[in-house]
Amino acid sequence: MTKLNQLQEALDAKGLDAAYISDPMTINYLTGFYSDPVERILALILFSDNEPFLFAPALEVEAIKDTGWKYPVYGYLDHEKPFNLIADHIHQMAGSPRNWGIEGESLTVDRLRALEAVLPDAKFNTDLSPLIAQMRMIKSADEIAKLNEAGKWADFAFKVGFESIQVGKTEQEIAADLEYALKQHGINKMSFDTLVQAGPHAAEPHGATSSNKIENNQLVLFDLGTIVDGYISDASRTVAVGELNEKQQDIYQVCLEAQLAAQDAAKPGMTAEELDKVARDIITAAGYGEYFIHRLGHGMGSSEHEFPSIMEGNQLVLEPGMCFSIEPGIYIPGFAGVRIEDCVHITENGCEPFTHTTKELLTFPK
Amino acid sequence: MTKLNQLQEALDAKGLDAAYISDPMTINYLTGFYSDPVERILALILFSDNEPFLFAPALEVEAIKDTGWKYPVYGYLDHEKPFNLIADHIHQMAGSPRNWGIEGESLTVDRLRALEAVLPDAKFNTDLSPLIAQMRMIKSADEIAKLNEAGKWADFAFKVGFESIQVGKTEQEIAADLEYALKQHGINKMSFDTLVQAGPHAAEPHGATSSNKIENNQLVLFDLGTIVDGYISDASRTVAVGELNEKQQDIYQVCLEAQLAAQDAAKPGMTAEELDKVARDIITAAGYGEYFIHRLGHGMGSSEHEFPSIMEGNQLVLEPGMCFSIEPGIYIPGFAGVRIEDCVHITENGCEPFTHTTKELLTFPK
Repeated sequence: MTKLNQLQEALDAKGLDAAYISDPMTINYLTGFYSDPVERILALILFSDNEPFLFAPALEVEAIKDTGWKYPVYGYLDHEKPFNLIADHIHQMAGSPRNWGIEGESLTVDRLRALEAVLPDAKFNTDLSPLIAQMRMIKSADEIAKLNEAGKWADFAFKVGFESIQVGKTEQEIAADLEYALKQHGINKMSFDTLVQAGPHAAEPHGATSSNKIENNQLVLFDLGTIVDGYISDASRTVAVGELNEKQQDIYQVCLEAQLAAQDAAKPGMTAEELDKVARDIITAAGYGEYFIHRLGHGMGSSEHEFPSIMEGNQLVLEPGMCFSIEPGIYIPGFAGVRIEDCVHITENGCEPFTHTTKELLTFPK
Repeated sequence: MTKLNQLQEALDAKGLDAAYISDPMTINYLTGFYSDPVERILALILFSDNEPFLFAPALEVEAIKDTGWKYPVYGYLDHEKPFNLIADHIHQMAGSPRNWGIEGESLTVDRLRALEAVLPDAKFNTDLSPLIAQMRMIKSADEIAKLNEAGKWADFAFKVGFESIQVGKTEQEIAADLEYALKQHGINKMSFDTLVQAGPHAAEPHGATSSNKIENNQLVLFDLGTIVDGYISDASRTVAVGELNEKQQDIYQVCLEAQLAAQDAAKPGMTAEELDKVARDIITAAGYGEYFIHRLGHGMGSSEHEFPSIMEGNQLVLEPGMCFSIEPGIYIPGFAGVRIEDCVHITENGCEPFTHTTKELLTFPK
């Protein structure tokens, strides 16, 4: 059964007649077609007992057909009134469906009000966002293959970035080097702004790559990811430049131990908060608990803002196909920051990472 | 009067007691603080007769104070319930304001419903998005200075991109070269995916930069822009590689004539559709009207999705401070595409462009 059919069945089970799907990521997930139409309208209309249709800007219609979409697709021109046209197509295909599901996390208020105006008898009371997030949380083999491919390019980026390290070079120059190498291979999109942070700067986990220069005897933190075929990678490594003192070495080794222990422990049947605790207990026991100031990990797939969240308080039970980051960090203000991160997918009896760059402490330039 | 005070006065004039501002771009515009909190909550609460406050993820609070924000800012932690906290702060500062304005174009349905749940006596019936778009349409001298700065980096990018052209090189390699040079100067963000399109590929105005190789005797189209200090640039140039035939030269010269005529004509008092017509008439008279398949321009500032839209049907009268693109194009499928674009701001008696790269036909490699 396709994901589209699954969602149609779910509508039926919830007593819904139809759904207005508007998040471009969800449309990609359900149809294989991705486009962010910004101020224009792109919608997938599903019915519990009719075939669905796509509604899109006219200039996207050919691209949609090219993806193999086998149901109707209707285009509109900029001067036309999209919601009136949507209502006409709905009436033609399915009469006047009454109970609608929407995506409350992405549908904007003005568009809901436009729908209410053209479909005055319809009720848009059911938010399907949680159900769709739930569906998207369990990745298929096809999706995991794409995540592995995106991971390979993150590994490639680490290699180039590490080799680019020179004392006196700026964080920005190193980030530029690795992104340039990716672009030469046709990998044009990063999944978020590449982070290269040296020395004390790495203790600001929400800081950005800056014009700070790499100095000797520092830890340098990399956090990066690519987008390949609609799926992302996201990984962090921290490497040494020159000689590290005892405390720099210690925070690295504690963070590494926590990361390896959590990645080793992750398996079906444990809860998200139990996994967070595996890493956190190690860092706390070593005396750095106050410097691990974020959750262990976040879900990922088409973006880095998915479920499950690996944190205290989340009693969600891990299942095969769930994908998330395992990224403990130790950030000591004014001193240094370490983060080591792989994203993984839960398998039948453990987990497998999407990135494979060694996590042993490396020193550059070699 | 600050922009914030202007909006407060507008609330009063509309009979509104308060406003919930949630678009990160609007918050940046009104406060000088920019952050996209993604799934977390960032909101600016305005009252018609009380001081405003910002509500933000705890880890953003220091950054907000650093911008010089002189009103209260309240942070929340991930495990707290943000909308309950927001309601508490509202009650403490302003009692129970009844009539609210919202930003319908960006506020999502689930967040509106969360607000309705914690403020059951409030009415959220007024969409302030059009008013705010109207305010943002007229740029201040400070904003225009930032747009000029972003424009300078677009000019720099053209220079690097043109010099990077070699027969046999891919479109992606040329885009990578110019973005790399920008990054080396600390310009890390493009305002949209850089377009480099060679030969017939440039006739697909919604195509992307590809691994197609540059060939001899082609036109190569560049469309690019940077983000500097929260403001964007956006410009297009088309250059020759090798020798052009008569038709390639002709579409270039017609497009250039249309662009120059429109840029020369743009001034306060004319309508957006009149300006579109200036360029369109020239292209139509030359026999290429059917190949100019988009509006003449779009508004820009913090993004390339602002007002005014320069197109048929828009009778908006141009005023000093309005900023938009002037970008006629001729796209002949299977043959070639030309687009020439500067973004400009309307002055007291004409317009001034943000980019200054020559529009005379250049040939590369030199």
